[in-house]
Amino acid sequence: MDYRKLSMDQLEKMKADLVREHENYKAQGLKLNMARGKPAPDQLKLSEGMLTYDFGGDFSASDGTDCRNYGVLDGIPEAKELLRPMLGVAMDEIIVGGNSSLQLMYDTIMTALHFGVPGGRKPWGKYDKVKFLCPAPGYDRHFAICQSLGIEMITVPYNSDGPDMDMVEKLVSEDEEIKGIWCVPMYSNPTGITYSDKVVKRFAALKPKADDFRIYWDNAYCIHHLTDDHDVLLNILDECKKNGNENMVLMFASTSKVSFPGAGIACIGASKENIDFIKSKMTYQTIGFDKLNQLRHVRFFKNFDGMVKHMELHRALIAPKFDIVINTLNKEIGPHAIGGWHTPKGGYFVSFTGFDGTAKRIVQLCKEAGVVLTGAGATYPYGNDPYDNNIRIAPTFPTTDELQKAMDIFCNSVQLATIEKLLAI
Amino acid sequence: MDYRKLSMDQLEKMKADLVREHENYKAQGLKLNMARGKPAPDQLKLSEGMLTYDFGGDFSASDGTDCRNYGVLDGIPEAKELLRPMLGVAMDEIIVGGNSSLQLMYDTIMTALHFGVPGGRKPWGKYDKVKFLCPAPGYDRHFAICQSLGIEMITVPYNSDGPDMDMVEKLVSEDEEIKGIWCVPMYSNPTGITYSDKVVKRFAALKPKADDFRIYWDNAYCIHHLTDDHDVLLNILDECKKNGNENMVLMFASTSKVSFPGAGIACIGASKENIDFIKSKMTYQTIGFDKLNQLRHVRFFKNFDGMVKHMELHRALIAPKFDIVINTLNKEIGPHAIGGWHTPKGGYFVSFTGFDGTAKRIVQLCKEAGVVLTGAGATYPYGNDPYDNNIRIAPTFPTTDELQKAMDIFCNSVQLATIEKLLAI
Repeated sequence: MDYRKLSMDQLEKMKADLVREHENYKAQGLKLNMARGKPAPDQLKLSEGMLTYDFGGDFSASDGTDCRNYGVLDGIPEAKELLRPMLGVAMDEIIVGGNSSLQLMYDTIMTALHFGVPGGRKPWGKYDKVKFLCPAPGYDRHFAICQSLGIEMITVPYNSDGPDMDMVEKLVSEDEEIKGIWCVPMYSNPTGITYSDKVVKRFAALKPKADDFRIYWDNAYCIHHLTDDHDVLLNILDECKKNGNENMVLMFASTSKVSFPGAGIACIGASKENIDFIKSKMTYQTIGFDKLNQLRHVRFFKNFDGMVKHMELHRALIAPKFDIVINTLNKEIGPHAIGGWHTPKGGYFVSFTGFDGTAKRIVQLCKEAGVVLTGAGATYPYGNDPYDNNIRIAPTFPTTDELQKAMDIFCNSVQLATIEKLLAI
Repeated sequence: MDYRKLSMDQLEKMKADLVREHENYKAQGLKLNMARGKPAPDQLKLSEGMLTYDFGGDFSASDGTDCRNYGVLDGIPEAKELLRPMLGVAMDEIIVGGNSSLQLMYDTIMTALHFGVPGGRKPWGKYDKVKFLCPAPGYDRHFAICQSLGIEMITVPYNSDGPDMDMVEKLVSEDEEIKGIWCVPMYSNPTGITYSDKVVKRFAALKPKADDFRIYWDNAYCIHHLTDDHDVLLNILDECKKNGNENMVLMFASTSKVSFPGAGIACIGASKENIDFIKSKMTYQTIGFDKLNQLRHVRFFKNFDGMVKHMELHRALIAPKFDIVINTLNKEIGPHAIGGWHTPKGGYFVSFTGFDGTAKRIVQLCKEAGVVLTGAGATYPYGNDPYDNNIRIAPTFPTTDELQKAMDIFCNSVQLATIEKLLAI
């Protein structure tokens, strides 16, 4: 039944049942954490062979580099070869870095603030203001970088196939202080959608007023499929090249959710000019990244196909968890018409949109019942969800049993919060 | 014989012999690289067990953290425990980072430029100029960071027990734009000297005009002894605390030359207030560093004593190489009174000081004969050795046979360049 069609009496009666159920959950003293998109231990076990890999005394990269010693700023050749298909770039369009793509993003922004970027007239930091467009709901750590660096964030809403491009085109063409936009173009965190070809082409054809505008294309989930008929993302660098815009995009990826979070390898893909510029600054920051970990990844996965096959093992473990989330939402929320969600074909999240003004309350109710969710609002710039209706569900870390319990609690909390809201109107 | 007491004829005759010898070396087509302080392959082999270490399925840190997954910004507890004796700090006075102490230094400077430091009134970058004192000869990568970031460098000469502290005290007390000083306090790169207690105490008692002045204390060679009667460095943080100056120093170390260059673990040691501040900014830059590599180091070395014992294995391999350098200099240069050097009790370098105006020529002659040295001038800010007399010798990487050959060539080159200089006066 659609909650909005119920009488006050009916709602009050339902509320009493839901409160009883909520108290019941509370009494069970559960402790489940679904706050972050973390792989589960059984997923981590898939890559354990990498940690016990026997190098057999051979620590040489394909170019003869001794990976145990100093040298090589931008990654050993076979690590570039391994990762470049993730971003669809050539060997001179990639840097393989350390364990964190976030760090590569942060550092390129710091570099832009201090030095500027190729094609720009001065460092970003020399403008009165620096602004970033932030399609939201989005990734909280992207927004946190902007907030920490004093970069003003402008929220851009999502359509079903990507950010609202009318708004993006208008804003970047008018405002020289807009220097960047955050994108998770594939299985977006948290919406789960993949940008359509049309959206990618419109991004590639942008005519920013700022000559130093950059698209931060965080392709974190590029091979993280959950279905056979998975999404396919258009190569934005290729499209940018067609528009003479090849310096406009910086792409990022990592093996954090392929091998190990925190002990994977990360990369930047971009035009050769951008890559050369980044290297020219990076060379003062470090002598080089961990080449042994790069070599370990190459020896374990062998090549890109090996990595894609490895992702099928991940899928076998986590697709059933996404099914639990979607099935429970379909069963407990669907009939009442009190929330919406997209069924993602990949990635790490399900984004739930409830009635306006319920998200904080749902997260609070879940917490009372022992389920920690990503904080309400975290998916918006400044942690401020203007509608207070979005919640990110991260299904991968709990066991299936825990997850089913957590989703039961989540749905009970959504129902209760929604009825509270309806009764208060 | 002292070259300066020889007649022109004698010099010309010697020159002819040296040129013949030089041509002889050239004809041998040697290729030896002594440019950087790199461990030799037999040193790297000492830590090979770390790479084939069998975790036995146990990837948990002492606090229960799964080192394969996300989490922990500032290092796992046992990694802090392992490294903190290197710097003599408490558990809340250390961050264990990634593979590069240089990156930690660079990033703390970037942070200071952008945000300032505890106790400062505004970001360094908001001053008209930022200046660093640079004791020289020093480490070229320190100076390169300043140059790349537009930080003006002021050269400070060395005495036998550390930088000229009269000059340091005078400059920092007068000029608010002086925000930092680079120090390699133990077995200094390249001079090999260790700062005396008196020098450390004078550092700790500095009264800078700038309220946001920082000592960059790069203790890269803190356990890298070459002799039983090794140097001992006073703990500067303890001394700073006595003076109420505990926020004035940032200390750095790494296992780059203990385990693997580029695949070791690095750390920052500082007052709790500095550490908390650095973490408060670092948390936007990365989720965390490679905890598996931290765990690998702990499991392999077990504890600080294990690391110290491991350094004795390094010493056994490289001390004979330092002997070759010193013995050859004693034999070939000493009698002629055409150069000076310090016999280091640790570290990675021997610093050679020749006649003024000969360093570039010596490096060139060596190169012609197949021996690549660190570029002349590299040990000075802006690559500019005002006397053109300092050359850094890095003996560790070549085999002992190669090194003996290289030192023969080096000494021949010194003799030849010096005679050329004397003949030209």
